[in-house]
Amino acid sequence: MPGNSFGTLFRVMTFGESHGPALGCLIDGCPAGLLLETEDIAAELRRRRPPGGEGASTGRNEGDEPEILSGVFEGRSLGTPIAIVIRNRDQHSQDYDELREVYRPGHADWTWEAKFGRRDHRGGGRSSGRETVARVAAGAVAKVFLKTSNAVIRSWVSSIAGIDIPGPEKPGFDIEETEKNPFRVPRSDYVKELREKIESLRASGDSAGGIVTVSVTGLPPGLGEPVFDKVSAGLAHAALSLGGCKGVEFGSGFAAAFRTGSQNNDTITARPADAEANLANSTEQKTKFSAFAANNAGGSLGGISTGEEILFRAAFKPVASIGKIQKTVDTSGRARELSVQGRHDICIAPRAAPVLEAMTALVLADLILLHRADRI
Amino acid sequence: MPGNSFGTLFRVMTFGESHGPALGCLIDGCPAGLLLETEDIAAELRRRRPPGGEGASTGRNEGDEPEILSGVFEGRSLGTPIAIVIRNRDQHSQDYDELREVYRPGHADWTWEAKFGRRDHRGGGRSSGRETVARVAAGAVAKVFLKTSNAVIRSWVSSIAGIDIPGPEKPGFDIEETEKNPFRVPRSDYVKELREKIESLRASGDSAGGIVTVSVTGLPPGLGEPVFDKVSAGLAHAALSLGGCKGVEFGSGFAAAFRTGSQNNDTITARPADAEANLANSTEQKTKFSAFAANNAGGSLGGISTGEEILFRAAFKPVASIGKIQKTVDTSGRARELSVQGRHDICIAPRAAPVLEAMTALVLADLILLHRADRI
Amino acid sequence: MPGNSFGTLFRVMTFGESHGPALGCLIDGCPAGLLLETEDIAAELRRRRPPGGEGASTGRNEGDEPEILSGVFEGRSLGTPIAIVIRNRDQHSQDYDELREVYRPGHADWTWEAKFGRRDHRGGGRSSGRETVARVAAGAVAKVFLKTSNAVIRSWVSSIAGIDIPGPEKPGFDIEETEKNPFRVPRSDYVKELREKIESLRASGDSAGGIVTVSVTGLPPGLGEPVFDKVSAGLAHAALSLGGCKGVEFGSGFAAAFRTGSQNNDTITARPADAEANLANSTEQKTKFSAFAANNAGGSLGGISTGEEILFRAAFKPVASIGKIQKTVDTSGRARELSVQGRHDICIAPRAAPVLEAMTALVLADLILLHRADRI
Amino acid sequence: MPGNSFGTLFRVMTFGESHGPALGCLIDGCPAGLLLETEDIAAELRRRRPPGGEGASTGRNEGDEPEILSGVFEGRSLGTPIAIVIRNRDQHSQDYDELREVYRPGHADWTWEAKFGRRDHRGGGRSSGRETVARVAAGAVAKVFLKTSNAVIRSWVSSIAGIDIPGPEKPGFDIEETEKNPFRVPRSDYVKELREKIESLRASGDSAGGIVTVSVTGLPPGLGEPVFDKVSAGLAHAALSLGGCKGVEFGSGFAAAFRTGSQNNDTITARPADAEANLANSTEQKTKFSAFAANNAGGSLGGISTGEEILFRAAFKPVASIGKIQKTVDTSGRARELSVQGRHDICIAPRAAPVLEAMTALVLADLILLHRADRI
Repeated sequence: MPGNSFGTLFRVMTFGESHGPALGCLIDGCPAGLLLETEDIAAELRRRRPPGGEGASTGRNEGDEPEILSGVFEGRSLGTPIAIVIRNRDQHSQDYDELREVYRPGHADWTWEAKFGRRDHRGGGRSSGRETVARVAAGAVAKVFLKTSNAVIRSWVSSIAGIDIPGPEKPGFDIEETEKNPFRVPRSDYVKELREKIESLRASGDSAGGIVTVSVTGLPPGLGEPVFDKVSAGLAHAALSLGGCKGVEFGSGFAAAFRTGSQNNDTITARPADAEANLANSTEQKTKFSAFAANNAGGSLGGISTGEEILFRAAFKPVASIGKIQKTVDTSGRARELSVQGRHDICIAPRAAPVLEAMTALVLADLILLHRADRI
Repeated sequence: MPGNSFGTLFRVMTFGESHGPALGCLIDGCPAGLLLETEDIAAELRRRRPPGGEGASTGRNEGDEPEILSGVFEGRSLGTPIAIVIRNRDQHSQDYDELREVYRPGHADWTWEAKFGRRDHRGGGRSSGRETVARVAAGAVAKVFLKTSNAVIRSWVSSIAGIDIPGPEKPGFDIEETEKNPFRVPRSDYVKELREKIESLRASGDSAGGIVTVSVTGLPPGLGEPVFDKVSAGLAHAALSLGGCKGVEFGSGFAAAFRTGSQNNDTITARPADAEANLANSTEQKTKFSAFAANNAGGSLGGISTGEEILFRAAFKPVASIGKIQKTVDTSGRARELSVQGRHDICIAPRAAPVLEAMTALVLADLILLHRADRI
Repeated sequence: MPGNSFGTLFRVMTFGESHGPALGCLIDGCPAGLLLETEDIAAELRRRRPPGGEGASTGRNEGDEPEILSGVFEGRSLGTPIAIVIRNRDQHSQDYDELREVYRPGHADWTWEAKFGRRDHRGGGRSSGRETVARVAAGAVAKVFLKTSNAVIRSWVSSIAGIDIPGPEKPGFDIEETEKNPFRVPRSDYVKELREKIESLRASGDSAGGIVTVSVTGLPPGLGEPVFDKVSAGLAHAALSLGGCKGVEFGSGFAAAFRTGSQNNDTITARPADAEANLANSTEQKTKFSAFAANNAGGSLGGISTGEEILFRAAFKPVASIGKIQKTVDTSGRARELSVQGRHDICIAPRAAPVLEAMTALVLADLILLHRADRI
Repeated sequence: MPGNSFGTLFRVMTFGESHGPALGCLIDGCPAGLLLETEDIAAELRRRRPPGGEGASTGRNEGDEPEILSGVFEGRSLGTPIAIVIRNRDQHSQDYDELREVYRPGHADWTWEAKFGRRDHRGGGRSSGRETVARVAAGAVAKVFLKTSNAVIRSWVSSIAGIDIPGPEKPGFDIEETEKNPFRVPRSDYVKELREKIESLRASGDSAGGIVTVSVTGLPPGLGEPVFDKVSAGLAHAALSLGGCKGVEFGSGFAAAFRTGSQNNDTITARPADAEANLANSTEQKTKFSAFAANNAGGSLGGISTGEEILFRAAFKPVASIGKIQKTVDTSGRARELSVQGRHDICIAPRAAPVLEAMTALVLADLILLHRADRI
């Protein structure tokens, strides 16, 4: 099918160009009976704008206000499609007139035209990062659904502009801090250094890459569809569907390629005898009595969730729009020089974090529903 | 849908347990008129067994012989489903009796049971690496189809057991060499060191991880489906659907997270004046006259192919079956110690390479067919 | 997948409840480059209201104004999702307060609640005929696409309130007449009788059934996907997805069950010798030189289009909302009597005709795109 | 997707040509834990051959023996794909040499070639009725699954060769009789007349059409997916996907088009006071206390099951292969005369009945699994 849909049972289709009338999504398959209000979506949309001022992102106030057009009645989901629309405004489309005839390096301008024979040059059209507004709106609904399963999705920036931010394994990690600083790093003591680094890049008309880590706790074991739709495969698909994402790794990830089996296998541990006394026969209860110690697996084995934390990292390339002069070609194939004007993000990672959460929520909501059909 | 299907227009469903009667695949949507014979499939199945002796893989001779049951008539595809069956033999299922009641660390034994309430314990059942026989058979057909588009898929092991193998950027890289040594490395001068390293691991009852690099050349620009089914998203999904794959990266990949935009953007270059004189108006011809110099993008921008080489790397964890004694639990939740017996691969990367090629072929065959519907 | 999506490559998802804020659709996969404007959609929406006054339909002026939110730029489709929204207005939701606690016979009130545990009782919510606004909007886009293939879709009411209207096989059939009278019958000489019959039903608080015939000409042969997605299977699915549709038949249809093979087989005729002289080798040209005389097949053999007219008939039950007192039960299971108030259609067939056309357009647009992948 | 797959969660892909090596199916999504043995499938395959001698069908002994290649372990389904293969034998492919260059009227020979540019002319290839072997095998598994929901699917021939067979509304209807006579009619007193009629057609080299009625009892209410995948839409799709099926109707069907609303609406009746005393609050219980008296709806309202009997009729055209001389054209477009030789069925309805049951089982198994995702 065409690529603007995602999921099987919790199925989302998104739409919208950066400078068209509106963006939005349609969710087909959200179960009936879910308590849902516009503010659930608005709150996630606000998170697309990093907290605490400018940081690595543009100062543009997108001020997105979602409207629910269907699927909710008297405060609960009906089981029918939930349509959410977010109007565009303050578009300044004429700012993009120069781009009508030139291809920006690192952007989809050229490939989009090679595919469709035409493109909306205004702000990248549908290949713009603004497209993620619709993902976040859909993911917000998935998050509300996931709450009924006790799953919690969190994310943080773990590397930005060449600076690695230590993870939970070192003292001082504070997940709440990610909602307070504009870089979404979980450590306040890194903020000053990052601010200087980013401002220096901005001054030189350059940009930077970064890495986002996503954690999901509270999931039941048994999620994921063998063979092709492993939970890790679905999340990798989701992450790489984001513009600028160039890699993803689960648990020990690329480092696992440099380990031995005895180093990397997660020991399965039994509980002490007194706990064992309570051991009942059902699968559900057994999950409470064993654990995968080191979680090098990142929460799945054979692509099916273990019940441990799902943990993955997604790498984002530097923002392609830079002020520095770049060589490129125009639509007639002739050489051109281009300096991308306007206010652009310096690093996309802080804004990508809530989008990755949204995509993660969509993948997991779908797998939870699919899991209901696993047994007679 | 359940997770044993892959693709939209070039659609594959696979089946089979490691120790059941047979494995195989069904391909729905292979275009009619393709010259196809059993040997096309048999040849790829033989590649699942690394060349040049034992190396990092088990010495077991799988000797897989594919049978085409439908979809081919008088040497050409009919446009109907192509069913391919590969019988299992020499199964020694009783070797696995111990595993009926114990969960192997690093394997899907426990998660599979948590999902379905039961499992086929013999060799991992459907979670076995043997499942990839069906992928390779399907991919072999996709490869034959891709030849009609001039696309060429190649792969090599770029890291194994902690030893990085330099890529094409350094002299001495020889892709033909990958079909001659058991580690599928593209450099003969590394073979001796690798052999010693792998034998040392084997002797100690341990295993190793590795990385496989995949290259696709000859593809047209314009492949990939925005927003969710970018070519990179599809390939990431494909890679992570392989057992033991823990990460994937495209082009500059995770390294891009540590670069600036001016370092990472691929300059788009115009051809010299005399070539430009030949410049015609059509998109097809324009692709001949510009190029993305460094290809940090790894062959796609905005998730749509640029026409440059598609290049990605997939990381595999160490083989989970090791002779060393590991702590685990049994099906009643009690602590157990386990040493996995039998001959197992030491590193999966050399065998994963042709499987990754097969999955890549499936992704691309699908995108090529989908591309036909892009314009009126 | 959940049932609010339709099609594979020309993929539509619809949304909206009868008395919610809006209805609409999202089209993913409309090829790029299509000339498309809002008026194309508005014109089809106006056709949902039968011409020439009240007739068999309610006098309510739905006055639907579509807004295109995405996917069209500078007058042409971009290849991205086309979102169309139609706002609801003049809803008088409070008119439905009585229905909150009672199930209307012949409606989906009870079944919807059995499925989802809740329902939007206002006007039937999503089970309302008003839902077809979204189908017509999507079908309008499909119709524009079909024009690029020279296909023409027409429909007429061939039976209404027990009165059969002769088809094209008898003199006096005038397809243009269907856009002039409120019953959409292709014969002006039946209008007076129908008006009297319908008014008599209205006066007695009753309603009537009807049959709609759909004709498609100008299609190429070779459309339809064996085995399960035959062109007739797709159209039957489409027709029966309409509320109130209880049957469908193709070509000679149910009458074929009472014929012999020698009566029902369509003779394949060759052209005379002079035409044959022009016979070239290609399939495309051969289609011009043979024909299926009687077209008892209704335009497809083995589920694949012959190139002849596709012809089918869909039967609609009488409108379920009637003024006459009916026995039913309320939400607590107790017996109730109900007379459905308000202005309702007497027969749905005249309004169903353009909706059937829209669904037909969606099925065929999809099959035309799928056909592009049939051969190497 | 290509048309050889069916269903969403209970997903089937079939394969095989009439004279290729084998036919079969792959079922992805059959829930784990189902007691399943080869005989369950073999028994349904035997039912494809009508009971009690030759009747309206060919005397050819297909003697199909299914082999389960995967998905079942120790007598129960694993949750993995179930592959079933049935080998072809006694093919006499050379009998079809004449058909290599001539198109049989009423068959898919010509349309198939127009679609794919080639065809397997031996016995119709994949467009042969023999293709239904795979449907019946898949449906047999679906039937076993449906037993866990207490659903019972039955079918009978309700019209054959122009002779209508009265239904259950008249005395003498005996469903068991359908498994005893070769016409699958539910009344033994019609057998002699039918035998004479069919033999007379056989003698004159002609064939006949017929109608099959399908009944499903024991289903819960709430099955069916609004808007596009109503239970009736799915069953219509299923029925029309059978070769030779030209129409389908549900409940009062086409007759509803000639009724008034007060005649056709099913009254919803409450139980008497003593039963009402037992009325509990849950939806499940409420279904026991009300009923849709006449069931003109045929078991669904708004496309969602009411809990009453699902009842539909499918019309089949006369068998296209007849001995009588017919006019046609050959592959070079020239006029030819053709008398189809060999033993062919006279009427397909008796053989179509178990295939319709199989397709019905597939539709319902899917809807039952989808229903699990309807509520939080």
